Amino acid sequence: MININSEQLSEMEKYYRINLINSLAGYKSLNLLGTIDNDGITNLCIISSVFHLGANPPLIGMVIRPERPHNDTLRNIKSVGQYTLNNVLPEWYMHAHQTSASYPSGVSEFDACGFKKIYADRFKAPFVEKSTVRIGLEMREFIDVELNGTTIVIGEVVRIMTDDSLIEEDGTVNHICAKTMTVAGLDNYCLPQAVGRLAYAKPGVEPHELSMVK
Amino acid sequence: MININSEQLSEMEKYYRINLINSLAGYKSLNLLGTIDNDGITNLCIISSVFHLGANPPLIGMVIRPERPHNDTLRNIKSVGQYTLNNVLPEWYMHAHQTSASYPSGVSEFDACGFKKIYADRFKAPFVEKSTVRIGLEMREFIDVELNGTTIVIGEVVRIMTDDSLIEEDGTVNHICAKTMTVAGLDNYCLPQAVGRLAYAKPGVEPHELSMVK
Repeated sequence: MININSEQLSEMEKYYRINLINSLAGYKSLNLLGTIDNDGITNLCIISSVFHLGANPPLIGMVIRPERPHNDTLRNIKSVGQYTLNNVLPEWYMHAHQTSASYPSGVSEFDACGFKKIYADRFKAPFVEKSTVRIGLEMREFIDVELNGTTIVIGEVVRIMTDDSLIEEDGTVNHICAKTMTVAGLDNYCLPQAVGRLAYAKPGVEPHELSMVK
Repeated sequence: MININSEQLSEMEKYYRINLINSLAGYKSLNLLGTIDNDGITNLCIISSVFHLGANPPLIGMVIRPERPHNDTLRNIKSVGQYTLNNVLPEWYMHAHQTSASYPSGVSEFDACGFKKIYADRFKAPFVEKSTVRIGLEMREFIDVELNGTTIVIGEVVRIMTDDSLIEEDGTVNHICAKTMTVAGLDNYCLPQAVGRLAYAKPGVEPHELSMVK
């Protein structure tokens, strides 16, 4: 067994530790984050720090790294108050990864990386046309994490645009049919396969697969 | 295309909305969260709200729902200051799901659901023996989210115990070899397959697969 303690962690080479810690806790949500500024210039970046915060109100959190000169994303969210999350598919995941390159200010990653925009009624931020699950959010809270200078952005889901037949009868989005990808660490892109849906767990009842009412 | 707005979201049947919002943003990190109280009673629960916060210092965040009478987990983390995250494997994922059942206070889910504990030197919280990637954390910060009463717990990684050969030369944990599972929504368990590792993205350079230095 490999056994690593905090002294060894602090002495690790920088990029080795980045890869290790970033991949440690398993697979991450993978999305393209779409924003727009007040002059209409759009921005698109891949993000893997999205987490579910609660269903009522419908809230999603994400971590944004410290604001830098060309970190347009955080500035756009602050000024416009809206953003979108769009799932990533195997057919074009390389182009989604390419949005992480440092393009000059004023260049939209939608154009530079070959993504067509679509818009929803009464919603400013752009969605990714070739995604199959698209979420429109309104910014609700910024939390500055003093421990490392990151910002946790909390948004409320106000729009959902999915391809037909992707929402099951009980409300669950079928990400297998949606072809949604996931990522481990910085760059390890994966496509999940279904193992099983399990019924609500109760003490004394053996765990078993969910029987879906059709 | 299915098009849902915030009015429709607010009028949805409660469990339909829970399933929809919980599954919306894609696949989630899946772990068993191990804790212990000051009397030595252990607790184990499945958690899917873990997110990467930063590598230096090595920080991981997670969302805990509002404290309830038998929410021993949050109380244990607060009183002992330590906890563990352990990955979930296909061979026993049904037993991992079973830890979400409401067992009476004083019953350890390690015993009730058939998990053997292991311990690390100078670390109180228990690890899951049959996981392949095990993380020991020390609590660093609690953030109360007023929007919905949840708590974001931030911990620093102070121990890592993995099976041999799971950490690649550049530090990345190989979750395909580790057989780590992921979950979409409340109960949709999946096993990812590798698609590709991509090189660091640069403007003007076509996205391409990473050539690993052996």
